[in-house]
Amino acid sequence: MNIIKPTFVINKKRSVKNIERMRDKALNSGVIFRPHFKTHQTAEIGEWYKSMGVNRITVSSVEMAKYFAEHRWQDITIAFPVNILEIDDLNQLSTKIHLNILVESPEVVNFLSSQIRSKISVWLKIDTGYGRTGIEWSDEDRIVQLCNLIKNSPKMNLQGLLTHSGHSYQVKGAEAIKEVYRDTIIKMSKVKVQLTSRGFNNIKISVGDTPTCSIVENFGEVGEIRPGNFIFYDIMQLNIGSCREEDIAAAVVCPVVSRHAFRSELVIYGGAVHLSKDSITDPNGHKVFGYVCRFRENRWGSIEKDTFVSAVFQEHGIIKASSDLFDTIEIGDLIAILPVHSCLAMNLMKNQVLII
Amino acid sequence: MNIIKPTFVINKKRSVKNIERMRDKALNSGVIFRPHFKTHQTAEIGEWYKSMGVNRITVSSVEMAKYFAEHRWQDITIAFPVNILEIDDLNQLSTKIHLNILVESPEVVNFLSSQIRSKISVWLKIDTGYGRTGIEWSDEDRIVQLCNLIKNSPKMNLQGLLTHSGHSYQVKGAEAIKEVYRDTIIKMSKVKVQLTSRGFNNIKISVGDTPTCSIVENFGEVGEIRPGNFIFYDIMQLNIGSCREEDIAAAVVCPVVSRHAFRSELVIYGGAVHLSKDSITDPNGHKVFGYVCRFRENRWGSIEKDTFVSAVFQEHGIIKASSDLFDTIEIGDLIAILPVHSCLAMNLMKNQVLII
Repeated sequence: MNIIKPTFVINKKRSVKNIERMRDKALNSGVIFRPHFKTHQTAEIGEWYKSMGVNRITVSSVEMAKYFAEHRWQDITIAFPVNILEIDDLNQLSTKIHLNILVESPEVVNFLSSQIRSKISVWLKIDTGYGRTGIEWSDEDRIVQLCNLIKNSPKMNLQGLLTHSGHSYQVKGAEAIKEVYRDTIIKMSKVKVQLTSRGFNNIKISVGDTPTCSIVENFGEVGEIRPGNFIFYDIMQLNIGSCREEDIAAAVVCPVVSRHAFRSELVIYGGAVHLSKDSITDPNGHKVFGYVCRFRENRWGSIEKDTFVSAVFQEHGIIKASSDLFDTIEIGDLIAILPVHSCLAMNLMKNQVLII
Repeated sequence: MNIIKPTFVINKKRSVKNIERMRDKALNSGVIFRPHFKTHQTAEIGEWYKSMGVNRITVSSVEMAKYFAEHRWQDITIAFPVNILEIDDLNQLSTKIHLNILVESPEVVNFLSSQIRSKISVWLKIDTGYGRTGIEWSDEDRIVQLCNLIKNSPKMNLQGLLTHSGHSYQVKGAEAIKEVYRDTIIKMSKVKVQLTSRGFNNIKISVGDTPTCSIVENFGEVGEIRPGNFIFYDIMQLNIGSCREEDIAAAVVCPVVSRHAFRSELVIYGGAVHLSKDSITDPNGHKVFGYVCRFRENRWGSIEKDTFVSAVFQEHGIIKASSDLFDTIEIGDLIAILPVHSCLAMNLMKNQVLII
């Protein structure tokens, strides 16, 4: 394929290496590896995982669950609070595959109890400090109440406790990331012990953010891990310290359409509808929408120094370029942008992907 | 259609009113109305414009130009610096329709001069202060140089000077917006006078941002206007002061999937892949990803006080809700989110639209 417009380029070798590394760590720790497929959302990439022995996956919507069920995935967790309006789709899915869902309120458990037609596996969503969704880990009463409701519902199988320690995205460096993991496991284990003491046996623990799963070597007490972003990584992960530059396996490759020498800016065809508007703040206080690499012969080079995507509009991106880069780039050249958030960029670019 | 997942809901009556208002203002000012279709990107909505007498449009990519050309639009401006890598598509398009393109550098003009096969209309992209793309309005030498290159190229017809005063998005209130317009027109007129004095006749002026086009009553000296966002407006426009709440014609309707009473938060199925990550900062310093309205019987109500979308993740959104709203909303209810940037939300939701 000749790249003539913004294209999501995936380095397969690096992606496969990232998957292998995570799979092997899970194997060595004796935990199930249930990768999150919201990052790539593509049947073809799903096959890479399958060929490496993965047969359980995570998704973040009923729509994705349906898509991957059509592509012969038989054990899927929808890691999103149940949307009761999609009950018909959930019922259809649960007759075909082993479906795992997340609950966090009695209203939803009662609703499912009366509406679910086939057996379904249920995880309690626990909040261990992220503060987005889930039951407060310390709210023993509510946790026990929900477990009892599930136990009394003949169609629901309680699997255990699931959390997403998304606050690992707010720290930096291996030690801080490991601390988030340790804290998560301590809290989840406490809840498990409480439940066991009340007669709920075989409670499993599921965890799953990319920063902790990338840094922690032994996953310890948990039953499964569900990272997703690690297949591609991105600038956000690099910034947190959960990957190295050479692990980043996806770039949005964009044509240069204009040069503004007096402000050392390159204008690219590549904006918010390709990269998303996700940004990080760099050590100099600049808002960064992507880092920039040269792209030649279907390969991207190292991150260019003193250079970054400084603004994105619907279709345009602006690169603040070092004079080194600026002077050697012409209109019509291709530039690789390492995205801030590869999941959002991939979601935008699903129909314009090149695997190298 | 029964809404069971995030859906981009368009109020047709309001959209048509917004179009009519802009069309009539253009008519009264004697300027051509060439609306920007990047906001909706849909053939069906294009037909609304057509039925109101519009036959010239603006788009922001070659891809969109191809799409609308297939839907019988015959006069299209691609308001984006020419991407020379798409020359084959440009050549195909220019044989079929009246194609208008933007240039800002001698490299591109020379390239087109040797590569373009059919007649093509060319606009000089001028920067009147936004600082994104275009030739500095005061750079007379470069402007004249480009005009001469175009004049000497038999396939290129110089149309005039085109600008996008996107800095109108950085001001607030009618007076400040009008001032951006006045300043734009003064600069564009100066360039036109310079060109006329050098023998370039019939130089037209094209302007086009939604804030100024919404507020200015008489467009004066310009030849055409190219606003796009005004068909739907959004929270960003409301915040700038270029529309009223009752002009906002699009909302992303989302199911409520969880309630967290102790922090008065509702969790919705509706996140960055539905709303985009565009945000504004409200007067209290909160980052806002959308305002919130009740949604009943396919209609949304007024913006709820003390309530806003405070965070978006890939598929989740978090609503900080007033106790008034919180107490009356149940899991499974639908909530309408007025997006911060309707163009980006529509781009994400193109395949899940409901027109009411």
